[in-house]
Amino acid sequence: MQGRTYFCGEVPANAIGEKVILKGWVQRRRDLGGLIFIHLRDRTGIVQVVFNPEVNKAALEVAERVRSEYVVEVEGTVIARAEETYNPNLSTGTIEVQVDRMTVINESKTPPFMIEDDVEVSEDVRLKYRYLDLRRPAMFNTLKMRHQVTKVMRDYLDGEGFLDIETPILTKSTPEGARDYLVPSRVHPGEFYALPQSPQIFKQLLMVSGVERYYQIARCFRDEDLRADRQPEFTQLDVETSFLSAEEIQTLTEKMIVRIMKEVKGLDIPAPFPRISYDEAMGSYGSDKPDTRFELKLNDLSEVFQNSSFKVFAGAVAKGGQVKALNVKGGAVQYSRKDIDGLTEFAARYGAKGLAWLKAEDDGLKGPIVKFFSEEELAALNTVLGVEKDDLILFVADKKKIVADALGALRLKIGKDMGLIDESKFNFLWVTDWPLLEYDEDARRFSAAHHPFTMPVREDVPLLETEPEKVRAQAYDIVLNGYELGGGSLRIYERDVQNKMFKALGFTEEEAISQFGFLLDAFDYGTPPHGGIALGLDRFVMLLAGRTNLRDTIAFPKTASASDLLTDAPSEVSTAQLIELHLSTNIKK
Amino acid sequence: MQGRTYFCGEVPANAIGEKVILKGWVQRRRDLGGLIFIHLRDRTGIVQVVFNPEVNKAALEVAERVRSEYVVEVEGTVIARAEETYNPNLSTGTIEVQVDRMTVINESKTPPFMIEDDVEVSEDVRLKYRYLDLRRPAMFNTLKMRHQVTKVMRDYLDGEGFLDIETPILTKSTPEGARDYLVPSRVHPGEFYALPQSPQIFKQLLMVSGVERYYQIARCFRDEDLRADRQPEFTQLDVETSFLSAEEIQTLTEKMIVRIMKEVKGLDIPAPFPRISYDEAMGSYGSDKPDTRFELKLNDLSEVFQNSSFKVFAGAVAKGGQVKALNVKGGAVQYSRKDIDGLTEFAARYGAKGLAWLKAEDDGLKGPIVKFFSEEELAALNTVLGVEKDDLILFVADKKKIVADALGALRLKIGKDMGLIDESKFNFLWVTDWPLLEYDEDARRFSAAHHPFTMPVREDVPLLETEPEKVRAQAYDIVLNGYELGGGSLRIYERDVQNKMFKALGFTEEEAISQFGFLLDAFDYGTPPHGGIALGLDRFVMLLAGRTNLRDTIAFPKTASASDLLTDAPSEVSTAQLIELHLSTNIKK
Repeated sequence: MQGRTYFCGEVPANAIGEKVILKGWVQRRRDLGGLIFIHLRDRTGIVQVVFNPEVNKAALEVAERVRSEYVVEVEGTVIARAEETYNPNLSTGTIEVQVDRMTVINESKTPPFMIEDDVEVSEDVRLKYRYLDLRRPAMFNTLKMRHQVTKVMRDYLDGEGFLDIETPILTKSTPEGARDYLVPSRVHPGEFYALPQSPQIFKQLLMVSGVERYYQIARCFRDEDLRADRQPEFTQLDVETSFLSAEEIQTLTEKMIVRIMKEVKGLDIPAPFPRISYDEAMGSYGSDKPDTRFELKLNDLSEVFQNSSFKVFAGAVAKGGQVKALNVKGGAVQYSRKDIDGLTEFAARYGAKGLAWLKAEDDGLKGPIVKFFSEEELAALNTVLGVEKDDLILFVADKKKIVADALGALRLKIGKDMGLIDESKFNFLWVTDWPLLEYDEDARRFSAAHHPFTMPVREDVPLLETEPEKVRAQAYDIVLNGYELGGGSLRIYERDVQNKMFKALGFTEEEAISQFGFLLDAFDYGTPPHGGIALGLDRFVMLLAGRTNLRDTIAFPKTASASDLLTDAPSEVSTAQLIELHLSTNIKK
Repeated sequence: MQGRTYFCGEVPANAIGEKVILKGWVQRRRDLGGLIFIHLRDRTGIVQVVFNPEVNKAALEVAERVRSEYVVEVEGTVIARAEETYNPNLSTGTIEVQVDRMTVINESKTPPFMIEDDVEVSEDVRLKYRYLDLRRPAMFNTLKMRHQVTKVMRDYLDGEGFLDIETPILTKSTPEGARDYLVPSRVHPGEFYALPQSPQIFKQLLMVSGVERYYQIARCFRDEDLRADRQPEFTQLDVETSFLSAEEIQTLTEKMIVRIMKEVKGLDIPAPFPRISYDEAMGSYGSDKPDTRFELKLNDLSEVFQNSSFKVFAGAVAKGGQVKALNVKGGAVQYSRKDIDGLTEFAARYGAKGLAWLKAEDDGLKGPIVKFFSEEELAALNTVLGVEKDDLILFVADKKKIVADALGALRLKIGKDMGLIDESKFNFLWVTDWPLLEYDEDARRFSAAHHPFTMPVREDVPLLETEPEKVRAQAYDIVLNGYELGGGSLRIYERDVQNKMFKALGFTEEEAISQFGFLLDAFDYGTPPHGGIALGLDRFVMLLAGRTNLRDTIAFPKTASASDLLTDAPSEVSTAQLIELHLSTNIKK
């Protein structure tokens, strides 16, 4: 073998007359008028190579036996194409290579699917033959973009004095949070490591160590039942700093993202990013991760209808709930009564018992409920919503959470249905002022809205013991186009505050010490104030690459049942392996 | 809190008169003549801050109650020190900060050991309080160097078109190689994932995908009984390329190392690095990872003594063994007869039944065995070894492997004993032309010298079925100062060659398919020739940082029994967790 002179997709248009050596895969072969044309592909793209019996008969004979996906080396001369045969789909479309020699380096069976972007094949087949799936240009380019994103992250953080520090994968199991993956110990019978759900505690310990600025592109693990956008192992950019305010951490993050958007996507994103409070996000968008690429906000009409003779509305308000509405501009034309029945069913999935509606027609608001409204109520409605002809108004009256969930989901659905979303936009947004705790109705106890190490607002600390639901967190999420890109907070750095937090979460003192005693101890030895953020890398790359499937951003992902279809993991292991680990499986065979 | 103006160790000597805000840890406090002096420390170093009652009494009162490792913020003015009080041990030794205000941010108990480099404390205590141990400047600087090394690796490889691609941590168990860590599956009862011993197969599959240039700074896992320089989880720079020769891969690696040595250590390392064959390494140094910072080579005297009347020597040669010797210059003076007895015991640990010796004195060679040698033998000995006065000659006559092991170990010991090693040198070296297989006397079968995917020298492939021990590998190791820094090879890329390799390793066809069927299948679809290398990051950083303990290069390492003394991992888990995983432990409680 000899060294290549160019990558296929990079043979320059002005190289005419040059002798070149190329290596790559046969994309396709066409035999035409005694000549053979091969599209030769590598990771950079495609170049056409031509075999002419009058130039070299031996090379043509080799070309006659090659098929798609053969690996070959060709030597030849760059020639200009006739202008009428230019191929605008190829970066090398104005030239081709007249071949003097071709060597078959390796052969290929017919692959189970074509190596091209718009291929009709089930994802299971793609995953089983992942090594072929990744040959498709869009897949390779997503991996390349992922590399670029992490490179810019690293360059930026290095420049800001952050150290990339690896934390352990074999760690201690802590039942708080999601379910751990466990790793049995051979040396310590009956004991287990856990794979980390995040490096949270280790990065805090690095702050105790005085590292001040830490980052890691860290693998994290959660043994949860998977949804479409989850993976059992996922990657986050994990950042922690000492002595900085929440705003300073947000600014650092923004600067990094601005640089990524510029260097990877060529886009100028204005900073600072908008900041809205959790309450405003829930109130105006019905979501803690609003998609702000379009308006269509939720409007609060509780006051308007609190004394309405329409009992559905007045009753909801009387019970402490809300009446809120979306005003869908042009929706009266877009949505038929049958369509609105569909929206009602959709809202019901989010707990809404009904979806009241009005349409603005030439002669005013029409709809089955309009008769219940007084003149004053209709006037107020018009004012609040700015009603115009062809508006469709959709109401949900219910508990606050159901109103938000149902109208929030409807907002997104209608935004998509009506093409309100500018898909070219990248809208970054901070959601701040989170509650510290959430009440878990099932478990009948509070759980941490972010995690148990989040710092309460200083003056709310006493409320931890009296009205935990009122405690505000020094936490912030970053949202991109309706996806939670990441979240962070200032952390507790005092033992007594951490103890109060554990108590509010229902830990006994014994449990707190047995699980997190080493962290509590660390707080005794000069722990600096600290805080940080974690960004989901897989999801960020998915959004940047314009993909809709998280698996497309991961070289070797797992299915929804956490299987690797390529290597067939997980799989059975030998009895000898289990004996060494002091384990039996409770499986009847 | 306010933003800091400087890091402690970076307050400039010319900042005199400037108002500064500093944050950090109290290294020590001295009360002297009504003043208080505090050494304030952060990750950059130390600055002295002074409390003077005539400047600010309130600040002095705060200073009176602070102790070592308190976290404080001080505000004050940079002043010049009197020249006779300059502290040459501090980067800021010509100035100090006159304090106007001090705020205690967090307090500290008295730490279990002083935060300074040369502290006398057991490693177990250091590991339990790792967050304090890492405050010691040498520890922080090692973490920082690790960051720098990986940053240069990434910059270099990015510039060469390599993509950083993550491979899975939850993978398939493959019994070949070391023992796997297993992860029970909850979703697939009775099945297990394994943590990867290396990303070997995934990186090869990426080459099948046409990625061409891959790297990853990858976590690897081996559940082995640990020696001092091993960790259950360790990190390697993992590199794979397509279409390159072994020499091209070596050159890429060299260029990267040269850049690391320049940017991290400020050293110019000449390249190309020396290359020696495995046979020469074993022959001249008695080691496959020779320390070439000093000479003291092994000399082959088998021919000289094959017909000797000294039957110990002649007999070893007659049985197919060797007679080899070290000529220790000046050793006759350095080593007494008693010392030589010690060397004999040392050699015995490596299997040598004896250690014959001679000393070169004024009137010729002396020693208990000299009487057995003929004039011709003594003359030949003098010629081969270049004997001079005060030389000590040490002989081992035995099987080839024992001769190499014993004299190789003696060589290193004497090199250290006699101070022959220039500790400032970084001697990189390629060891090439490895055997493909090693015969495992215990298992009575061949095992792979590197791994089962190593490409044999092309013309040796037929020998796989007839004389496997003679097959040469296209493999190379890189050695630094006597440590194996990494190793690589060209890989098999043809199904039939891989099948022959598995067969030589004792796999049945069924076993090969059940464990590696997906790789064999991949070879059917246009696999390019490929090869790569892996470098042990922990060890590389250890050598660059001049440490002798691998754990010092890892933020949160494990002990020799694979325990994390800080978090107490592994630990027991709840029965509920085990039930979910369909497992029981075979432990009687």
